[in-house]
Amino acid sequence: MKILTSHEIAVILVEIGIIIGFSRFLGEIARRYRQPMVVGEILAGIILGPTFLCIITPDLESGLFHLSPNTLIVMEGLTTVAVALLLLVAGLEINLFSLWNQRKTAFLVSFLGIAFPFALGFGASSTFPGFFGHVSGSDSMIFAVFFGTAMSISALPVIAKTLMDMNLLKSDMGTLVMASAALNDLVGWLIFSIVVSLIAGQAGQVNNPYVTILLIILFTVFMLTVVRRVFRRILPWLERRTVWPGGILGFVFAFTMIGSAVTEQLGVHAVLGALLVGIAAGEAEHLTERTKDVITQFATNIFAPLFFAFIGLRINFAAYIDLPLIAAVFVIACTGKVVGCTLGAKWSGSSTRESLTIGFGMNSRGAMEIIISLLAFEYGLIGENLFVALVIMAVGTTMISGPVMGWLIHEKKPLKISMLLKHEGYVHNLKGATPRDIIRELANLAGREANLNPAMIFEEVWERERIIGTALGGGFAVPHARLTGIRTPTVVAGKSRDGVDFNAMDGAPVQVVFMILTPQHDMGAQLQILADIARIFTNPAARAAALKAENYRSFMNAIGLAPERSQQH
Amino acid sequence: MKILTSHEIAVILVEIGIIIGFSRFLGEIARRYRQPMVVGEILAGIILGPTFLCIITPDLESGLFHLSPNTLIVMEGLTTVAVALLLLVAGLEINLFSLWNQRKTAFLVSFLGIAFPFALGFGASSTFPGFFGHVSGSDSMIFAVFFGTAMSISALPVIAKTLMDMNLLKSDMGTLVMASAALNDLVGWLIFSIVVSLIAGQAGQVNNPYVTILLIILFTVFMLTVVRRVFRRILPWLERRTVWPGGILGFVFAFTMIGSAVTEQLGVHAVLGALLVGIAAGEAEHLTERTKDVITQFATNIFAPLFFAFIGLRINFAAYIDLPLIAAVFVIACTGKVVGCTLGAKWSGSSTRESLTIGFGMNSRGAMEIIISLLAFEYGLIGENLFVALVIMAVGTTMISGPVMGWLIHEKKPLKISMLLKHEGYVHNLKGATPRDIIRELANLAGREANLNPAMIFEEVWERERIIGTALGGGFAVPHARLTGIRTPTVVAGKSRDGVDFNAMDGAPVQVVFMILTPQHDMGAQLQILADIARIFTNPAARAAALKAENYRSFMNAIGLAPERSQQH
Repeated sequence: MKILTSHEIAVILVEIGIIIGFSRFLGEIARRYRQPMVVGEILAGIILGPTFLCIITPDLESGLFHLSPNTLIVMEGLTTVAVALLLLVAGLEINLFSLWNQRKTAFLVSFLGIAFPFALGFGASSTFPGFFGHVSGSDSMIFAVFFGTAMSISALPVIAKTLMDMNLLKSDMGTLVMASAALNDLVGWLIFSIVVSLIAGQAGQVNNPYVTILLIILFTVFMLTVVRRVFRRILPWLERRTVWPGGILGFVFAFTMIGSAVTEQLGVHAVLGALLVGIAAGEAEHLTERTKDVITQFATNIFAPLFFAFIGLRINFAAYIDLPLIAAVFVIACTGKVVGCTLGAKWSGSSTRESLTIGFGMNSRGAMEIIISLLAFEYGLIGENLFVALVIMAVGTTMISGPVMGWLIHEKKPLKISMLLKHEGYVHNLKGATPRDIIRELANLAGREANLNPAMIFEEVWERERIIGTALGGGFAVPHARLTGIRTPTVVAGKSRDGVDFNAMDGAPVQVVFMILTPQHDMGAQLQILADIARIFTNPAARAAALKAENYRSFMNAIGLAPERSQQH
Repeated sequence: MKILTSHEIAVILVEIGIIIGFSRFLGEIARRYRQPMVVGEILAGIILGPTFLCIITPDLESGLFHLSPNTLIVMEGLTTVAVALLLLVAGLEINLFSLWNQRKTAFLVSFLGIAFPFALGFGASSTFPGFFGHVSGSDSMIFAVFFGTAMSISALPVIAKTLMDMNLLKSDMGTLVMASAALNDLVGWLIFSIVVSLIAGQAGQVNNPYVTILLIILFTVFMLTVVRRVFRRILPWLERRTVWPGGILGFVFAFTMIGSAVTEQLGVHAVLGALLVGIAAGEAEHLTERTKDVITQFATNIFAPLFFAFIGLRINFAAYIDLPLIAAVFVIACTGKVVGCTLGAKWSGSSTRESLTIGFGMNSRGAMEIIISLLAFEYGLIGENLFVALVIMAVGTTMISGPVMGWLIHEKKPLKISMLLKHEGYVHNLKGATPRDIIRELANLAGREANLNPAMIFEEVWERERIIGTALGGGFAVPHARLTGIRTPTVVAGKSRDGVDFNAMDGAPVQVVFMILTPQHDMGAQLQILADIARIFTNPAARAAALKAENYRSFMNAIGLAPERSQQH
């Protein structure tokens, strides 16, 4: 009945405990230095793994992490579930509806953001296959296609996290970057799945790789049309009728496992199925932000560290560092992605500075690059050297993305909310009971302030709000729009005594609403005002005072409580 | 590098998906019929397992759930982690501080609640070892000790859930039942661990079982003193300094795995370590209710169904049904527990009806009984017949507990809030900013109403509040006390415009506070008033209207919005 021995169980448990604890520890340190936690998590694996422990004391290493076959099998099972959940979370972030709303700009940024790095990567690796570690004997075409794909992948969850940390996720630029990255991810994973089928075909594991490819495409279309429509019906029903959040959580988890099993059985990796379930389930109308948040907490806090630490555990990083290769991979990846996305953004109407910001935003590779590299490594498509180089590139691009974006945005003298919010633009008792009513009230106010048609303002802001809600959590919301009719930014604000449900991530009713109207061609203005609101919002004293303020004067005093930020942060 | 084949991975994923989805489905159906979800989850395992599928179509069963050794190993690893997390959650519910506050009554109820069923079980199984399935050759003493322990175990999480569903968790009786069950669980698991060491000693797996027993006791004491004190320092620090809730979640999870590994390595099962980590970490001062809630969601929605369904999957229930044995086990378990706890409650001053309610509350066995039975079964201590009988007893006692308690409580004509809350007892603008201040304000009001010393009321209610907070979630709180000085129940209520943080499970600030004062010797009065408040609180329209009410009249109208309950529910 029992297969594992007591000692094996103890080893598995202690190992999981150490991995998660130590990953968390380094992850929190990374966060303190404004770096994504994944940086610390991979580092934890490297330190616990052969790279370091081998050097210090081979005994400890072999005792703790040189595992018996049975414990290895358990760990492999756990990490398979972990990576499926990570892709589910990535899929949940992809909003096809929002993508469609921004199809003109998002498609351009996304297309050039894939095409440029892919072309560079494909060209370089097919010209110098030996340098990039292509093993002679295997198909160099498949290798080059993979390398191109690896260069063009992006990492939606990391990008979302970076934008959220900078309080740009809800800005126009944020939604554009998110939509482009979503499309990028979906296309990237499909190409990768096709690569995997081709490998399997060559290895004789499947009879005809083209049948597999056809099945993958059919399954993808099926998931994104039929299943997506079915989910749109049944998920809200489940959310109403079952215990919250357990019910919806259990069913989404079950669907994910089954979707993953289908793609695994089709001959590509389980991750594709999980990603597709995530996309089909994740649209804003179905799942509330809080439910998504619970699923994300599940996946990112327990399963993600296990997976990333395992990457470090598997390989002696120090032994496979190949500096020229790492440099080449890094340069190709950054050049291709930044240039491609910047051109795409520029051609769809952004200024040069904004386009560069978008380019660097899309450049971060994070978890997705690492997962794709690990799979390629497991399928025998790439060797240790290239694997290590790709992991370093993924971590490196993730680390530089935030700081460079911050530098690009905060260059100009920033706009301050304290300069923009007039006495006439503040209303103490918002009457509306829905976001729509609140936005209509503030649009009327803003119309008087800016000499514009309130109905037009309402239309623009409401349309923007519907793409992605602007609640910041903690009782704040920032509906906004860029308008052609105004030359300088206009800000109005109001307070709702009872609070209004804006479908905020934290579920808190929104009591303080800023409406931000900026000129169409000045994306920077909007970003700066949002950043200034973040200054207030992230200061507990200022936030509490703003929520309590009884009139314009005490409201402005509350804003004054938060220290002014230096230009760069 | 990869050990599992693609097909094995697909099988594991599809299996996890089907188990979780189907368990959830039956669990939700069970909930609809006011039964604990665990009933549906075990049923899912039985239906998916050999009991049913074998009969319908042997092929499907062998294809889906008759697994290759590798997939079985992965499943065993997963369920080990699952059961450790379940015990962590059970441990988190155990509050040593609250236990100490109620030591007189809780120890009596708990002691008799263990001693009676243990004595009955021990006596019956040592007198008729053959009937109870004792295998001749093994030590009949150890078998009888186990059987006694199995009879005396209780199930804190299920009891907490039952009390919560009846809105009695925060009542005096609820806290007493919880404290008694906590002590019961801790003692039960320690005895079981000693039984396991004795078995291991006889099997020659450990050199000296008494050394193991000594180590277990030392480890338990160490965890409940030193580690508990260390946790009290570092957990609040972690909660402040790390990302919430990921940081605290990651560390508690890591500690749990390591604690489990220690007890597993000591020679008893991993569950003891997880339980002790839970107790050490779970005290109210350290972890907020919301953090506990996230951990509980983790454990109960994904891991618990996996574990329970696996019990059904392991064994053909139909083949091992032994009706006389099931009846005997059921009768011994219920008689011992109900009589023991009822006497304990009676002797510590409760009325007969209240004592019986406590007795039936403690009688539900739920998950803990099933876990202990499964472990005994795996250690070869009991056979299939007794295992099936114990599982059925666990499910049966869990099913009857809620309905019987409800019937016992709702027998008398219930007290209604609408009869008790006077105009003079309602204050529209509570000024306090902390629970302490609010309770002082309402105590002053109640003092005038009931002609009692407000300071004494405050002392009693505040002391009660400190044991376990009375926030119900959704903005409601019900501080209460039983007083010797009053003859009839007194209820006062107030509203706080800005809300006050009562450390509610849902984190919502409390806006509506009812203070309930009832005579010392009439426990039923308090329960009925709480049940009547639950009627308002669980009706969305009434709750919203109560939160919005601007004066006594509109507040009473809000209460009228919720339909009166029939006497039994």
